[in-house]
Amino acid sequence: MLQETIDLSTYLTILGFNSAIPTINTSPTAQLLEMEERLFLIDCGEGTQVQLRKAKARFSKINHIFISHLHGDHCFGLPGLIASFRLLGRDNPLHVYGPKGIKKMMETIFQITETHRGFEVVYHELDKDYSEKIYEDNRVEVYTIPLDHRIYCNGYLFKEKPKDRHLNMKEIAKYSEIESCDYHNIKAGKDFVLSDGYVLKNEVLTLEPAPSVSYAFCSDTRYLESVIPIIKNVTVLYHESTFLHDLKEMADYTGHTTALEAATIAQKAQVGKLILGHFSNRYADLTVFTDEARNIFPNSFLPKALESVKI
Amino acid sequence: MLQETIDLSTYLTILGFNSAIPTINTSPTAQLLEMEERLFLIDCGEGTQVQLRKAKARFSKINHIFISHLHGDHCFGLPGLIASFRLLGRDNPLHVYGPKGIKKMMETIFQITETHRGFEVVYHELDKDYSEKIYEDNRVEVYTIPLDHRIYCNGYLFKEKPKDRHLNMKEIAKYSEIESCDYHNIKAGKDFVLSDGYVLKNEVLTLEPAPSVSYAFCSDTRYLESVIPIIKNVTVLYHESTFLHDLKEMADYTGHTTALEAATIAQKAQVGKLILGHFSNRYADLTVFTDEARNIFPNSFLPKALESVKI
Repeated sequence: MLQETIDLSTYLTILGFNSAIPTINTSPTAQLLEMEERLFLIDCGEGTQVQLRKAKARFSKINHIFISHLHGDHCFGLPGLIASFRLLGRDNPLHVYGPKGIKKMMETIFQITETHRGFEVVYHELDKDYSEKIYEDNRVEVYTIPLDHRIYCNGYLFKEKPKDRHLNMKEIAKYSEIESCDYHNIKAGKDFVLSDGYVLKNEVLTLEPAPSVSYAFCSDTRYLESVIPIIKNVTVLYHESTFLHDLKEMADYTGHTTALEAATIAQKAQVGKLILGHFSNRYADLTVFTDEARNIFPNSFLPKALESVKI
Repeated sequence: MLQETIDLSTYLTILGFNSAIPTINTSPTAQLLEMEERLFLIDCGEGTQVQLRKAKARFSKINHIFISHLHGDHCFGLPGLIASFRLLGRDNPLHVYGPKGIKKMMETIFQITETHRGFEVVYHELDKDYSEKIYEDNRVEVYTIPLDHRIYCNGYLFKEKPKDRHLNMKEIAKYSEIESCDYHNIKAGKDFVLSDGYVLKNEVLTLEPAPSVSYAFCSDTRYLESVIPIIKNVTVLYHESTFLHDLKEMADYTGHTTALEAATIAQKAQVGKLILGHFSNRYADLTVFTDEARNIFPNSFLPKALESVKI
């Protein structure tokens, strides 16, 4: 019997989720998404490389880094991470997605610090105000989610493509003519024709595939309804909620969202689960955020740094 | 009796001392020197602002930052630290001393990340190949120590100026004519003339001042005898020793010093105490460095992160 030995589930590890200033116990924004064996790093605040070590992430498997915007708490860990990649002997190319300007900043730093790289860094600079597909392979797609912050900013939507159907081994065992070399076609959805001409329909030989999951990362932004159609029905949504709603004016002024608003986005987009984050340092007890959000969207949660969550 | 209520001793806190790659338990180079109530930050690898928090340093008292060279493990924490200064409401100017190029790098980063500062950053760019005085106030002087690394690099020498003499209150009490408003002149070394014309010599009225201490920071460099006259007789010398002497060739190639060589510098410069640092990650047990150094210079020590040591 065919065994799926590789775990193709999607896991999210939040490496840091506080806003602005790193402290002893909290780190600025960075997340690691493992989807279909790809390892995507999302944002890279100062200290992210140490958080990655704590999460026991394999540095050499990180080939794609997505930066939402060029505020320091989302990107100041990038020069050090790339310098460490070099020292660890990396040779495979690294793709960096981020706002226009990221290449100039990074290359100026590398030139002045004489950080000679033995590998290529490919910059994918973004400047569009509409959602676009920026990455695709045979199993995963990534789209931008244009946001509304004080500086040009995108969220990112990660989607598994529809998966192969599972083999129904109980049925397949009834037909000795079906050999293991036929499995590939059957999983891909094809019928099987027996030597007597009888057609075994694919839906008899297979079971529904595992559902394809999706993850949307939205940080930093004002309340913005135009994200709703882009993130519709995602399995998990991370949405910043820097303030509670009594500071709605402050949120608007600084280009951020309140917990109530983040929950409203989640509810209107009918997402499976909402993770809040990017909390202002003024809040010592973070449960006030879920208390506020759950009034609108009950399936709201606080992030837990370094915990790997299955999506 | 006059009491010295302020502790004017000099303290060194090593915030990080490993080379190249930050790990979970080690930080790249950064040191905090408190001398005569001034707080000097020396180098600023990634994560330094969190180390400063752990050391309970008052951010607002750091007005002078000295960067030895522009390799990432000595400066990648600077953009984040300055960004945090702004968020904490700083308004006093910050002086940054470092190699030519530091201004362009920092200003490019601040421009692209739109880090608007409410305070002035004054860059003092260095490009000389001889020792120069780069800072002076009424109590402290700072000199560069030109080093020999793969990139332009300076160490820094911090010196307390000669201190005021102490009042000999036992003697002074004998003369009712001497009032507290006279103490300033007496401490500064002046004799006191009694109303009958008798001259009280200053050496009778005062005791020797506390000795002036000095601290030399040397990182990163090949073995370099030209530093010896500059750091002659310093109270404490920090000298990098990235490798043991069996890797002398590797040390030369990468622009570093061995423990044996660092001890030789300490011995020839007749310093009071040697602190080693900037160890390659290949060494798990660091006592091998002091074992090697003490053969040449017995007063050699390992650094201890976050421990505040009186100089």
